[in-house]
Amino acid sequence: MKHELPFIPQRPAKPRKSGITMVMDKGLSIRAAEDFMSVGSEYTDMVKMGFGTSLLTPGFERKLEIYREAGCMPYFGGTLFEAFVIRKMFREYVELLDKYKVELVEVSDGSYEMDHKRKLEYIRILASRGIVISEVGSKKKDVVYSPAEWVLMMKSELAAGSLKVIAEARESGTIGIYNEDGSVNMALIETISDHVSLENVIWEAPLKSQQAWFIRHFGANVNLGNIAPEEIIPLESLRRGLRGDTFFQFLPDDIDESK
Amino acid sequence: MKHELPFIPQRPAKPRKSGITMVMDKGLSIRAAEDFMSVGSEYTDMVKMGFGTSLLTPGFERKLEIYREAGCMPYFGGTLFEAFVIRKMFREYVELLDKYKVELVEVSDGSYEMDHKRKLEYIRILASRGIVISEVGSKKKDVVYSPAEWVLMMKSELAAGSLKVIAEARESGTIGIYNEDGSVNMALIETISDHVSLENVIWEAPLKSQQAWFIRHFGANVNLGNIAPEEIIPLESLRRGLRGDTFFQFLPDDIDESK
Amino acid sequence: MKHELPFIPQRPAKPRKSGITMVMDKGLSIRAAEDFMSVGSEYTDMVKMGFGTSLLTPGFERKLEIYREAGCMPYFGGTLFEAFVIRKMFREYVELLDKYKVELVEVSDGSYEMDHKRKLEYIRILASRGIVISEVGSKKKDVVYSPAEWVLMMKSELAAGSLKVIAEARESGTIGIYNEDGSVNMALIETISDHVSLENVIWEAPLKSQQAWFIRHFGANVNLGNIAPEEIIPLESLRRGLRGDTFFQFLPDDIDESK
Repeated sequence: MKHELPFIPQRPAKPRKSGITMVMDKGLSIRAAEDFMSVGSEYTDMVKMGFGTSLLTPGFERKLEIYREAGCMPYFGGTLFEAFVIRKMFREYVELLDKYKVELVEVSDGSYEMDHKRKLEYIRILASRGIVISEVGSKKKDVVYSPAEWVLMMKSELAAGSLKVIAEARESGTIGIYNEDGSVNMALIETISDHVSLENVIWEAPLKSQQAWFIRHFGANVNLGNIAPEEIIPLESLRRGLRGDTFFQFLPDDIDESK
Repeated sequence: MKHELPFIPQRPAKPRKSGITMVMDKGLSIRAAEDFMSVGSEYTDMVKMGFGTSLLTPGFERKLEIYREAGCMPYFGGTLFEAFVIRKMFREYVELLDKYKVELVEVSDGSYEMDHKRKLEYIRILASRGIVISEVGSKKKDVVYSPAEWVLMMKSELAAGSLKVIAEARESGTIGIYNEDGSVNMALIETISDHVSLENVIWEAPLKSQQAWFIRHFGANVNLGNIAPEEIIPLESLRRGLRGDTFFQFLPDDIDESK
Repeated sequence: MKHELPFIPQRPAKPRKSGITMVMDKGLSIRAAEDFMSVGSEYTDMVKMGFGTSLLTPGFERKLEIYREAGCMPYFGGTLFEAFVIRKMFREYVELLDKYKVELVEVSDGSYEMDHKRKLEYIRILASRGIVISEVGSKKKDVVYSPAEWVLMMKSELAAGSLKVIAEARESGTIGIYNEDGSVNMALIETISDHVSLENVIWEAPLKSQQAWFIRHFGANVNLGNIAPEEIIPLESLRRGLRGDTFFQFLPDDIDESK
């Protein structure tokens, strides 16, 4: 209905550089993808076909079209990239991208720890072909990077050609930039945001508490990823201050005088 | 299939005064709303378009029609009421309700703590226009009311014109009438039920363990709210004793002799 | 798209004896069941209409057809069997199965603890009519069987005519073969797998961590149950090593040399 309320944060129109939302599709049917777009296309920028699901989901090609027609960029999960690379099939992966005309590609090393120079090389090659986003952070509990290492990796990947870097959290939101209980690793995030432009980072934030934390901390137009399709409207409500968790975030300081 | 089993609790037909189920729609697509009604219309009394989602969900007007045509009462989340009131736009909120012919309205103060007299005044005004339900309890951890305060607020809001009062739990079920781990605050609930007629209270109970507790404690026809659309059939199974958690609830005491 | 990658485990074609996936439908609409089959029919063997939901879901008969037409076997949850048996209506339950031409039937005693000889008798009678799967393990926290008892019950039920035995975990995955926090009771599972053929056991594994554990432990073609419909593609990704949790599971030992 788009009824205008004052003090509701504005969101840039698509295509946008900040306020990006990346949604994870883990195997939606064609009809479910249409339904998702019917409510979420305006608020969604990128749709990740999570991990290796694309190889296994019937009707996958039609879904690529649905997302494109609705103005969203579909792409394959980084785990699929890694599954090809560990099998020494990088060339075949590029052929796959070309075959399905997938412009956006994720370069990650969350499962398969490759030499970082090699990762940068993949970013460079793929950036000459289309748009690259690269993911920093491991999916494994026992691989922990220092905040300085996070910053260094992010900066060098952006320099190599990544449009944005993604801060890893998995679908569960319990690793990477989060502690095991899903709470935010604040020291890490503050170090990153001190050294990397916020516009260039997509924070994976599958849990509502995480989404609300980032919006309170960095504003309505922080880039967020790994959002479930059915959470696109609730997330947009958080971004606009229309949910309890961010209710006071975008009001003028003096509005509460009326109490 | 409606195969009749003995000792399955009967549920009153709609429109009913007890055994009410209020479902939270957080941004369903048109087709998903139709799907939900195709299985859930008989078991659902009220559909809340949660918090401020209505302002952001394309096709929202069509959804109002779908719910009405299926015999359910749609309404806006209380957070939307609060978002207008804190902006001194109560009149505009009433205009919005009128524009979309939304008869049922929720009055709450979960995010914006207003003076309780003022809340009662809003209830009085809106009760002269349509049906009011009002929510008691804060969405914030640091705002804790005593059981006596809960009772007092509920009684005064019913006296002011609320058809039912809603006991707050949020979508997560970890606040208000619940402890932080989602377990039930029994002392609070027993004080409330000692002093307020059960027919007049809707307990927000998003988690299955909470739904089962209320059904075991107060019977099949306790009023429950903040049910997810996909949980409408599982909840109805709990109400009828057709799920493990309430399996023995509605059987005669002597049936187990056959063992 | 079915792009072939080397070292991706093969899965037997349907109808299959191992690598079975049993999905729990808790009240899907007709359209949602169609959507589920449109992506999941190849990967799904059995669809359980969970607990007593069949009695309460409008359009239930049409759903049976949808599942059958897609090559999956639909059946009623074991709680429904128990709800009839505790009311001394076993004969009526068989009539119900016949009326709806439901060939597959689950015999369980998770809610209603019946004498085990009686359970075996039900298995024998129903095995003469169609296909029986029987569930071992209680839904109640205070009923704990020793590993030897699990083995004995499973063996005797298979001997009585069960095609497969199901190891209980509930929808929540926090009981039976799991500890209260959802972690796997390894000693129990190893005792079972030492004495009962893996082909004959379906492990209820609603949580991803549980699914990944079984696939790492017993391989891609372990039988798993109580999978949510929207998790069918993510589960298949785990089975194929196309998700972080099982990424290295099906690779040759020497592939990592390339690092």
